Amino acid sequence: MCATCGKSDATVSDESVDLKPSGYDGFSKEFTEEDVRWMRLALAEAQKAKRISPPNPSVGAVIVRDGRLLGAGFTQQTGGPHAEVMAMRDVEARGETVEGATVYVTLEPCSHYGRTPPCALALIEHRAARVVVATGDPNPKVAGRGLRMLEEAGVAVTFGVLSDEAYETNLGFMTRMTRGTPWVRLKAATTLDGFIALPDGCSQWITGEAARADGHAWRAVAGAILTGIGTVLADDPQMNVRLPGETAVRQPLRVVVDRHLETPTGAKLLTTPGGRVLIVTTSEGASHVERRAALEAAGAEVIVLDDAERAGYVDLGRLLIELAKREVNEVHVEAGAGLSGALLSADLVDELLWYVAPCVFGAGLSPLRLSPPASPGAAPRWRVRETAPLGGDIRIICRRN
Amino acid sequence: MCATCGKSDATVSDESVDLKPSGYDGFSKEFTEEDVRWMRLALAEAQKAKRISPPNPSVGAVIVRDGRLLGAGFTQQTGGPHAEVMAMRDVEARGETVEGATVYVTLEPCSHYGRTPPCALALIEHRAARVVVATGDPNPKVAGRGLRMLEEAGVAVTFGVLSDEAYETNLGFMTRMTRGTPWVRLKAATTLDGFIALPDGCSQWITGEAARADGHAWRAVAGAILTGIGTVLADDPQMNVRLPGETAVRQPLRVVVDRHLETPTGAKLLTTPGGRVLIVTTSEGASHVERRAALEAAGAEVIVLDDAERAGYVDLGRLLIELAKREVNEVHVEAGAGLSGALLSADLVDELLWYVAPCVFGAGLSPLRLSPPASPGAAPRWRVRETAPLGGDIRIICRRN
Repeated sequence: MCATCGKSDATVSDESVDLKPSGYDGFSKEFTEEDVRWMRLALAEAQKAKRISPPNPSVGAVIVRDGRLLGAGFTQQTGGPHAEVMAMRDVEARGETVEGATVYVTLEPCSHYGRTPPCALALIEHRAARVVVATGDPNPKVAGRGLRMLEEAGVAVTFGVLSDEAYETNLGFMTRMTRGTPWVRLKAATTLDGFIALPDGCSQWITGEAARADGHAWRAVAGAILTGIGTVLADDPQMNVRLPGETAVRQPLRVVVDRHLETPTGAKLLTTPGGRVLIVTTSEGASHVERRAALEAAGAEVIVLDDAERAGYVDLGRLLIELAKREVNEVHVEAGAGLSGALLSADLVDELLWYVAPCVFGAGLSPLRLSPPASPGAAPRWRVRETAPLGGDIRIICRRN
Repeated sequence: MCATCGKSDATVSDESVDLKPSGYDGFSKEFTEEDVRWMRLALAEAQKAKRISPPNPSVGAVIVRDGRLLGAGFTQQTGGPHAEVMAMRDVEARGETVEGATVYVTLEPCSHYGRTPPCALALIEHRAARVVVATGDPNPKVAGRGLRMLEEAGVAVTFGVLSDEAYETNLGFMTRMTRGTPWVRLKAATTLDGFIALPDGCSQWITGEAARADGHAWRAVAGAILTGIGTVLADDPQMNVRLPGETAVRQPLRVVVDRHLETPTGAKLLTTPGGRVLIVTTSEGASHVERRAALEAAGAEVIVLDDAERAGYVDLGRLLIELAKREVNEVHVEAGAGLSGALLSADLVDELLWYVAPCVFGAGLSPLRLSPPASPGAAPRWRVRETAPLGGDIRIICRRN
């Protein structure tokens, strides 16, 4: 597994590894304010990769000598160069050389031959004097090997500069590597009094343009957009990334949980441009052989994931493992009350992306179908990560505690 | 009407007056950065009066000579001295004199004899050289008279320094004076999915201690706390101000909308320390003569406000006029879905004070009973004034657009 690009033939590890504190004890953690400033620039480069690089992690690199920026780069699309190589090319394109320079990179350089030679080797060959790394490669087969390769070749290594920020940049990749499942973000848009639609189901539009554009920006960094058959039948969503005045570089996988295999072959998610379509059903659903064949003919992949404990339902936990195997780092859930409630009930959601429109309906559809807690205090509390105005609406981001 | 203290025998005007732009054209609006800094200090003094001064407006004053602070003060409880007098006393207590000094005051000094002589006259007698005023007295009988009295006596007057901030300090007083009704703030505490209680009605506690303490701080600045009979019967609230480690200086009027006159004489709002109790009922409710007598014997005042258009219901618009006549500047609504929804439907709410706990119930009681709009876009939008974390919860403040 190349830590920088995520390309891998390795299967996902079942071991849960906490990267940040362990495995990197031997490396210098001495750094200056100047190192922090340059790493912040490398993180800004990494941000540019967010919509482009998945399933590869989003990595940024900057190359500096004598306090002067020589070049910068970030991870390209799958199969393209890694951040370090992009930064070295940038240096050379400016008529400079990497020799004796310091390279700041937001994730440990890779140490093995994948589709490209190891970045650590490239840094050695270009005679970098020092490599400063924010955070490590989470794959236990790699952890620290990239850094050791550098040190053994006489390159000075510093580890752990802005590691939390760097970890956050690749939350989904890190989660997939260490937990074997993607980061799951559940999106909802409600009124102040908690409705996602009027009693007749109409929800267009509760939030304003800014919130809706923001929703597409989140879709654009995801590896998959997940919804349920109820939403497909009710709203016929396209489930693609539509950015104002911009063409999406990459379209996430479109995933529908559809236990009875009811997705119409004319559904927009099958007929509009966008990511591949994965329909997840049960044995019962798959028994509708003609419907399955028609969906496959329409371009969808159909898989069966029966829930062993709840007959006739899809196993959502296994679905996430399946998505991780397909290199999905982040799952963006935009679903109705049934699927959203089921994911929450099964404790499969990492983050809530909640848009609140400052209006009230008095009655309507609720965002989540789940069993109420025994008492108000028994409801699991989420951690509020952010609350901010967005256009005329409010965006709230919560994380699992 | 004394602009500084709000004491008045004048009836509330039906005229709506927009204070800030008009009526003060003749006064100098030339001021320096230094004036702004001193006025900010006067506004900080005014804040200290917020829990103490109602129904009088919360006013602050600072007195300055040669760039040196000589004294400061704020409005005391009803019957006590006004801010200017408090500041002048402070100056004298420090062995200084007001002569030749500049007085910064957040509201136009009063110009007539109420329970105390006019503040404008006191400023003249103490030979203040200049008076800088943030905003004017909203009573059309007074507007500008305090300033003119000063100018005619040779005191330099500057008007309009931080007027928006000063207006905000006394929003309720201003509203009562210009509109004839109090500022109405509706409080709710919901889960992320919009529930105020579990399906069984249990709501203790959805939000944490910080949010609940914040709710009491808002109660403490209100002139009345308003609820409905449903809440009284279900939750038996005390409806008083309870501040951690602090004794409330003033307790707001407790108001119950109770159309059938069902408030139990043993209700906590009648038996616990707190403000006076006003029960607002209909002719039908008042026809229960014994119950009315028992409630009055228990200390409550009972009034009848029949809704002419909705037989058997209380006229909420008239209730607000009634509360304004009782010198209530701000009404703090903590009610169930029925009364809250009725106030919103009648467009009687100025501000939403919305606490959101980062948890979900899946099912439960909704905060508002009202008719849904014809379409999502037809729901009136509120203006988000603030959204911020509070303890582990979120506080959202919206204003009517």
